[in-house]
Formats: sequence, structure tokens, C-alpha cells
Amino acid sequence: MVDLTQVMDDEVFMAFASYATIILSKMMLMSTATAFYRLTRKVFANPEDCVAFGKGENAKKYLRTDDRVERVRKAHLNDLENIIPFLGIGLLYSLSGPDPSTAILHFRLFVGARIYHTIAYLTPLPQPNRALSFFVGYGVTLSMAYRLLKSKLYL
Amino acid sequence: MVDLTQVMDDEVFMAFASYATIILSKMMLMSTATAFYRLTRKVFANPEDCVAFGKGENAKKYLRTDDRVERVRKAHLNDLENIIPFLGIGLLYSLSGPDPSTAILHFRLFVGARIYHTIAYLTPLPQPNRALSFFVGYGVTLSMAYRLLKSKLYL
Amino acid sequence: MVDLTQVMDDEVFMAFASYATIILSKMMLMSTATAFYRLTRKVFANPEDCVAFGKGENAKKYLRTDDRVERVRKAHLNDLENIIPFLGIGLLYSLSGPDPSTAILHFRLFVGARIYHTIAYLTPLPQPNRALSFFVGYGVTLSMAYRLLKSKLYL
Repeated sequence: MVDLTQVMDDEVFMAFASYATIILSKMMLMSTATAFYRLTRKVFANPEDCVAFGKGENAKKYLRTDDRVERVRKAHLNDLENIIPFLGIGLLYSLSGPDPSTAILHFRLFVGARIYHTIAYLTPLPQPNRALSFFVGYGVTLSMAYRLLKSKLYL
Repeated sequence: MVDLTQVMDDEVFMAFASYATIILSKMMLMSTATAFYRLTRKVFANPEDCVAFGKGENAKKYLRTDDRVERVRKAHLNDLENIIPFLGIGLLYSLSGPDPSTAILHFRLFVGARIYHTIAYLTPLPQPNRALSFFVGYGVTLSMAYRLLKSKLYL
Repeated sequence: MVDLTQVMDDEVFMAFASYATIILSKMMLMSTATAFYRLTRKVFANPEDCVAFGKGENAKKYLRTDDRVERVRKAHLNDLENIIPFLGIGLLYSLSGPDPSTAILHFRLFVGARIYHTIAYLTPLPQPNRALSFFVGYGVTLSMAYRLLKSKLYL
């Protein structure tokens, strides 16, 4: 029987696990940021969420949108759209026997670029800060996809 | 050569596979729920979807939003935002050699909390039902992330 | 110690890695398509994105929505909602020792259906082109979930 705890002794896989966990935890912070802005700005999406702030018609005025809340939600959705390909492709790439230092460079660049992307989106920093950090993360993921398909394509 | 069918003999990994498959299947039901409400309430997002209900200007009146449809879509998006970190972190955590009963407790709590979250969102139940089930799932995922990074951090 | 590079010698797993990488790369193209339409149609979601096109009030007129951009975004979100269950369930199914030709048929059908779904959504083709391609992908994922739970259920 395979002792699964040994899988984690692989250097690349362990590094992937660490970076993936860090960037997923960062993504989860976006939910907390949305909740924080919804509560402090009294901006809600559902009638049952604002009953504590008033009754009947008085509560309905909190069912609105807010630029700050929408900004956090757009950053969160952009995270979903980019971190999912990184997770899927990165996991398979890690198992395809890449050079460890090349692989870890990919993971570091991706995680750094996505953290910078969030800072650029929420501050907001002037463009092209956000666009460049988006394309760094995008390029890293495509580079892993290319290396994986080049070495292991099987259709 | 590694016999991959043996990977599934690991107790924690098999439990993770079962719970992950169950919660992903539940998430897929949200698509069906959206389609059901769109068809029964005649609420569509694209012109080509409502040609069966009328022609020209007559069809355009079905391109609208509806509270019930939006509620299902928000519950679905919340699932995406929370089930993805569970999948990624849970998979890596399962491979890191956790105590089986602790690991399975994590999986059960998460799946139970997310099913309750959907019920609370769609009924809707008064708050804090939905908020509490959200935070249980959130806390379970963070707990797995913490245990994983504590035992296997490699940057 | 497990030599992880051997994991990729498994026929089903290698096929899953290839098809998953292809469909994730296709999904990433949706980001590029959104950016393309935003730039060519001058339709932006954030004030900092359109400063290059004018100053002050003159720039604000580009903060709008556009049918073409919204269509790409809806296709992208539908990809997220369907490709994530395929990734999670497909990975676990690949590890559960399925018959190789059955497994590869599942992967091919899913990838073909999702590519056709994108074509049907963006062209747009008349219904039920999009609905049928959606249900093929949906059925393939549920079929993998059923086979996985039937052979490896462990709660």
C-alpha cells in the first residue's frame, strides 16, 4: 500500500501545498472584507440581513449597492477566475516531475502577483499596476500549462 | 510503478473523496435550481433563451431579473467562494497525514455547514442562521490550512 | 519514498491532466476575451481603468455595461460553475481505478461539450445548442460522481 504521508516528502509538492494554501487563505479574506464593508456601510443584498437595522420600509433602504463593496466583490471574482486554473494546473504540474527551482519560482511569482493584484485593486493604485500583476499571474499559469502538456500530453 | 488504485485505500483520502464529491454534487444542483426558476418564472438573461415565449418586442419583456433567481445565484456564488478553498486545502491536508478521526470531523462539519447554508439562504431562514453556517465552514477550512502549514510549510 | 514522477505514468491520470489543462486554458481565454471587448468597446468597470480615455466627467461615461461584455462574463461564470466540479470529481475519479477507455470517454465528452458551450454562448447560436452542451457536461460530471461514490463511498 502507498503510504500517502510520503507524498508530502516531495519537495515540489510540499512547496505547491504551502503556496496554494497561502493564496487560498488570502482569497478567503475577501469574504471577510466584503462582510466588513457591508456591516460598517450598512449595504446589504438580502432583506433578512438588515432586519437588525430597522423594520419594514425602514430596512429596505439598506438593500443597495456601494462602490466599495462592489470593488471587493470584483477583486474576489477575479481571484476565483485566476486561482482556480493555478490550483488545477499547478497540482498536475507539480506531479509531472518539474525541476524544483523552476517550479518554486513559478509558485512564488504567482502568489506575489496575486497579492499585489489585490492591493492594487482595493487601494486602488493607478493602472497599469493591476493589469501588470494580472498578466504576471496569467503568464505563470500558462507557462506551467505549456510545460505540463509538452512533457505529458496524452489525449 | 505506483499503483494509483492503492491511493484510494487511504482512509482519510477516501473520506475526503466522498465528502468532496457530495458537496460538489450539491453545488451542481444550484445550476438546476436556477434553470428551474428561470423557466417557471419566465426570467431570462439572454435574448436567445426566450424566443420560445414570444417574438420580437414580446420576447424582450422576459429579459429581466427576479428576486428568487438572484437569491439562488447568490447562494451558488457563495458556494463557489467557499467550496474551492475547501477542495484545494482539503486535498492537500488529506495528503499531509492527519489524524483520521480529526480529518473526518473536519469534512463532516464542512459538508453539514454548507448544506445548512444553502437551506438558510433559499428558505430564507432569519439571520444569524446563514451567517453562522458560513462561519462554521470558513473556520473548518482555516483550521485545515493552519494544520497543513504548521506541519508542512516549505517556502 | 514515493517517486511522484511515476504517478504521471498512470494512463488515466495522464489523460485527466491533459484534458483538465486544456479546459482550464480555454477558461483562461475568457479573461482575455473580456479585456479585448472592454478595450475595443471602451466599457469599463473601474474609474482607474479609463483615465487614459479622458479626464474627470469625460472619463465617467466609459463606466457602463455592454451586452457583448456581459455575455462573455456570463459564459466565464458558467465555466467556473461547471469546470470546478469536473476538476474536483474528475481528479478523485481518476484516482479510483476506473476503466481507462470509459474514463477517457468521460474527459473527451466534457471538454468537447464545454468548448461547444462557449461557441454557442458567444456566437450566439439559437437554443437548444447552449442548453444541450451544458447538460452533456453536467451529465458527464454526475456520471463520474456516481461511479466514484458507488465504488469508494466512505463516510
